[in-house]
Amino acid sequence: MLKRRKGSLFIISAPSGAGKTTLCKKIVTTVDSLVPSVSFTTRKPRGGEVNDLDYTFIGEEEFREMIAGGDFVEWAEVHGNLYGTSRDRLEGLMDSGLDVILDIDTQGARQIRKLYGDGVFIFILPPSIEILRRRLEKRRSNSREDMARRLGAAIDEIKEYNNYDYVIINDVLKDSVRLLEAIIIAERHKTERTDKSIIEKILA
Amino acid sequence: MLKRRKGSLFIISAPSGAGKTTLCKKIVTTVDSLVPSVSFTTRKPRGGEVNDLDYTFIGEEEFREMIAGGDFVEWAEVHGNLYGTSRDRLEGLMDSGLDVILDIDTQGARQIRKLYGDGVFIFILPPSIEILRRRLEKRRSNSREDMARRLGAAIDEIKEYNNYDYVIINDVLKDSVRLLEAIIIAERHKTERTDKSIIEKILA
Repeated sequence: MLKRRKGSLFIISAPSGAGKTTLCKKIVTTVDSLVPSVSFTTRKPRGGEVNDLDYTFIGEEEFREMIAGGDFVEWAEVHGNLYGTSRDRLEGLMDSGLDVILDIDTQGARQIRKLYGDGVFIFILPPSIEILRRRLEKRRSNSREDMARRLGAAIDEIKEYNNYDYVIINDVLKDSVRLLEAIIIAERHKTERTDKSIIEKILA
Repeated sequence: MLKRRKGSLFIISAPSGAGKTTLCKKIVTTVDSLVPSVSFTTRKPRGGEVNDLDYTFIGEEEFREMIAGGDFVEWAEVHGNLYGTSRDRLEGLMDSGLDVILDIDTQGARQIRKLYGDGVFIFILPPSIEILRRRLEKRRSNSREDMARRLGAAIDEIKEYNNYDYVIINDVLKDSVRLLEAIIIAERHKTERTDKSIIEKILA
């Protein structure tokens, strides 16, 4: 009986404006057997958002029960709404042999390292703070104070790159996609992830 | 002043017939800033072999002096000839920012792990022992005993795959080249190999 290889967890963090979300959306279309992690949230769906695709939308009581039951490998409250990543869901996908990509902030990544342990941690950097500033300006019409605050937060996050296994400087998207592909493909061929039964079959 | 990133050492081992030499010759033509390590040997050059390209051919006295001086990160005697990898040569290439690929048997790889420590260890496997047998048969006209001995040695080597960081099953050469490329590219983006001055430049 050939056992199916268990999938791996790829955790992607970046300061806002580094291009993480675009990169994560692209990579699941170019690498096979790679799926995004869908978070649970108590936030109400926004226009066009699909349940179980963008998020799994649940009530606060249900969310609190999942916290109490220890089901979240990370969760956070943002602007009064709860967001979390379910261990059961991750394990279910990985047990079926899929790799999972999880787009998450540095705080969530720290929780995952602590509560889950395993996983490949990848940090996305902007080519420069100046480019980050321009990307943020294009995205929203922020006040000057708001922009200063966002940039300060971005710089604080960048300083955490050292807690990650890989660093990608996201200048040209196409190059970053190719690099992220290389990291995922390489990690799949780590010896500890190689199904021993394959080696036994070769030796048979 | 922008410091140049120090190169890395990629160590490739495989049982004879797994296709390691072909793969190593190919990969230096497809990945930039990657060069093969040229071994020192006391063996006489064979027809067409070029000094400092295929091997650096030296006398036994000189070789023994290099052993005594601790210059070899690995050396071995094979059929009465000495072969060795010079630390000074490796360091020289890596200090100039080049990555070095070293095609070496499992015994040499063990020495390097012990005497040098750093490096990315990659093991190449044949798709099956049957295919390995056919490749070996095609290569040389061996006696039946000789073939049995070679296959036995190959199986012993394969059992060492667990001491390597990555495993490549070399079925279709083109796919294996692409996978080896992915491993090298990914390893170049490991956080510990990222030049800190690049991050400082981004934050500046």
